[in-house]
Amino acid sequence: MSTEPALMTLTAVAKAIADKKVSSHEVTRAVLHRIAEWQPRLNAYMAIESEQALAAATEADAALAKGNSRGPLHGVPLAHKDMYYEAGKVVTCGSLIRRDFVPKTTATALQRLKDAGQVRLGSLQMVEFAYGPTGHNVHYGAVRNPWNVAHITGGSSSGSGSAVAARLTFAALGSDTGGSVRMPAHFCGVTGLKTTVGRVSRAGAMPLSQSLDTVGPLAQTAEDCALLLGLMAGADPEDLTASTQPVPDYLAATRQSLKGLKIGVPTAFYVDDLDGEVARILDETVATLKKEGAEIVKVELPDQRQLSAASQLVLAAEAAAYHKRWMIERPQDYGAQVLMRLQNGLTIPAVTYLEAMRWRGPALAAHNAAVSGVDAVIAPSAPVPAPTIAESDVGNGPGAEAVIQRLTRFTRPVNYLGLPSLSIPSGFTKAGLPVGMQLIGRSFEEAVLLRIGAAFQRATDFHARVPKLA
Amino acid sequence: MSTEPALMTLTAVAKAIADKKVSSHEVTRAVLHRIAEWQPRLNAYMAIESEQALAAATEADAALAKGNSRGPLHGVPLAHKDMYYEAGKVVTCGSLIRRDFVPKTTATALQRLKDAGQVRLGSLQMVEFAYGPTGHNVHYGAVRNPWNVAHITGGSSSGSGSAVAARLTFAALGSDTGGSVRMPAHFCGVTGLKTTVGRVSRAGAMPLSQSLDTVGPLAQTAEDCALLLGLMAGADPEDLTASTQPVPDYLAATRQSLKGLKIGVPTAFYVDDLDGEVARILDETVATLKKEGAEIVKVELPDQRQLSAASQLVLAAEAAAYHKRWMIERPQDYGAQVLMRLQNGLTIPAVTYLEAMRWRGPALAAHNAAVSGVDAVIAPSAPVPAPTIAESDVGNGPGAEAVIQRLTRFTRPVNYLGLPSLSIPSGFTKAGLPVGMQLIGRSFEEAVLLRIGAAFQRATDFHARVPKLA
Repeated sequence: MSTEPALMTLTAVAKAIADKKVSSHEVTRAVLHRIAEWQPRLNAYMAIESEQALAAATEADAALAKGNSRGPLHGVPLAHKDMYYEAGKVVTCGSLIRRDFVPKTTATALQRLKDAGQVRLGSLQMVEFAYGPTGHNVHYGAVRNPWNVAHITGGSSSGSGSAVAARLTFAALGSDTGGSVRMPAHFCGVTGLKTTVGRVSRAGAMPLSQSLDTVGPLAQTAEDCALLLGLMAGADPEDLTASTQPVPDYLAATRQSLKGLKIGVPTAFYVDDLDGEVARILDETVATLKKEGAEIVKVELPDQRQLSAASQLVLAAEAAAYHKRWMIERPQDYGAQVLMRLQNGLTIPAVTYLEAMRWRGPALAAHNAAVSGVDAVIAPSAPVPAPTIAESDVGNGPGAEAVIQRLTRFTRPVNYLGLPSLSIPSGFTKAGLPVGMQLIGRSFEEAVLLRIGAAFQRATDFHARVPKLA
Repeated sequence: MSTEPALMTLTAVAKAIADKKVSSHEVTRAVLHRIAEWQPRLNAYMAIESEQALAAATEADAALAKGNSRGPLHGVPLAHKDMYYEAGKVVTCGSLIRRDFVPKTTATALQRLKDAGQVRLGSLQMVEFAYGPTGHNVHYGAVRNPWNVAHITGGSSSGSGSAVAARLTFAALGSDTGGSVRMPAHFCGVTGLKTTVGRVSRAGAMPLSQSLDTVGPLAQTAEDCALLLGLMAGADPEDLTASTQPVPDYLAATRQSLKGLKIGVPTAFYVDDLDGEVARILDETVATLKKEGAEIVKVELPDQRQLSAASQLVLAAEAAAYHKRWMIERPQDYGAQVLMRLQNGLTIPAVTYLEAMRWRGPALAAHNAAVSGVDAVIAPSAPVPAPTIAESDVGNGPGAEAVIQRLTRFTRPVNYLGLPSLSIPSGFTKAGLPVGMQLIGRSFEEAVLLRIGAAFQRATDFHARVPKLA
């Protein structure tokens, strides 16, 4: 059996199915074949629903034969981070506590992909309750990086990063509260979009932090992310924090060149203390963007460490509030690191939390003033390529905080400000590990980021490389 | 000089000026005359700006003579709680800390009254930073109740209650975060409207609690409150929490009868542990409403004590966050009770605060379900008539909490739920102290409350009685 259809991009496979160049059944079988090969090495899937997926694919093919397409994802097999509720399906949230939880409702973001015709392949691993940047999970095992299975995937959307990189799904929903989409995108070499807070409904998505949580896709390309965002974005009666701002044509944006765009390179913080190869790849990426027509300028950003501190404070307090009852009733059912971090959240005074919340407006205004001359800011998604699973297996030990801080250093400020950011595969280390750069944009201006990402991907092939089964 | 124009209602005097039956100057002079007589006994005003007021009145008369009316309040002299910023005017917030503070902007609510033509008389006393239910103020002295100057006015809109009752202004803005409009309305025998959270912009109003603060008028009648609310309500670019819900014709609502309305009498809590005369006046008020055409039914409300506890917790945390810097830098400049309460707010964990915030939705849903059959709920605004200034002068002593809890017992649940509530003068004790009943409505349904209040006031004269200068 050829696995070739499994290597197509989301956009390409959706079109091939729609054009009847390939059947949904054929595609689904090919992906399931790859999953069967890779899953023992990666642990990327939480649940694999082969029979149901094939049956749904057959149905999709039959419908299409009658001229009935459900939408732009008709017959495309997908799996998502196991925190998007689907009525009647177990959603573990990567935890023991939710191991058998069967929601009665379906997450709005997921429902919109279902309405567009997706076929469910199963569900993807994640860090317990999405609270951790490495991809370890004491209950279900660490997810492994397909570029080198001794290395982490990044988290918390660990399965999403690993599965998209290994082509075990054409795309996957992740969530980004402190970097949980961008870190796996970076470490696994895929494209990941952290959306503006409020751009995509969070109804039916496991909450971690009401102020910071965002829903976003991981996929091979910016174009694929554009397709998914266009399907998911927009107001939702089930989530009044979902914005009513109009949803632009993101796919159209990906077809534009870089001409006329200004991209800012920070003068500090995001260029400090970088791994040498990350620094090299940042320079190369900037050079490519310039060559493709973007104007490159320097930007001086406000102190990003303060943003990061405020971001962690808000996240910790809100996460602890969500988990308080379980922390009292079932502390033994949490992993040690997650429990430690949740317990830290209990100690935050309300006044400190409120001060951190109140600073968001002024901090965003200061950021907007600093970037007023540019369309996006470029920065590494993390200062290092993927460390090994062993070296970052720190639990709640003395090294835990240092590991967490190092990995999330470049992602958290964006979360605090609520801004969108697109992480794109930008190069590889000599050891063969991928490195991602993030493009940080203005609120609700995902289209500009997707445009830059797509233009970069027309000029490079980092996103198109496929890890080999060793 | 006759003081008679000073005794008119807001609506009546506004019409009389518009119809040139009386001049703004004449009215302003009459009110200033009453202020001069009463102020030494009541301490209701913070600042009296006689000359400027008379000059403004003269201008208003000149404009009107030329056919130029600024709006429905053209030439009407008013004073407001000293926490509504007016560009260039000192706004003390009842505090030492803000004693010399001159804001650069004007509160939206106040600006809308200015745009409607009001003449500024000065500013009204209030409890320090609006944080207290009695009307004491260690910096500027207690405000006194015009019905008996040995008794409290209630707070925190102490000057508003006292001045409206004594006819030292035709109406006054108050603010209600835990009962600060309704308690002075109740204790002083005036009509006070606590608005739905978001109904009136809070831009330029001194913040106490971002989640609970509301702007509302105190006046002689429900009709007067309707006039003011209609002028102030509605969206505001300066306050994104101000609702875009359409503003109904509140004055039209006050002309409707009670026919077809159902009013609920709670079976518990609001009828428990009442002062005997308050209980009698509740019964009499219900009887009058029934006689006027309302249908009276029993309602079983959810546990109001939990709502009250959550309300205090949210208020304390948010107030402490606003005051933290001053608490550190200038603790000696706070009154002892206010400082104690603000310091208590510092001890609240973020998780507890977030839990209290998160419970608002479910609590409001439970309330709405309980009152689904009625248009409003009636309850005393407080369980007792005004205590004496001496007996409630508890500072930060051991009796402080008991006094605060007793006075705010019936007002805080409404603040937590964000609902509107209209306190109407409903009778007098044998000792001659007024008693108010509050009509609690559904979110953004102030019109129903004003309709009931106006119908009640057509059938009674409690609102029209005027205290005598002893």
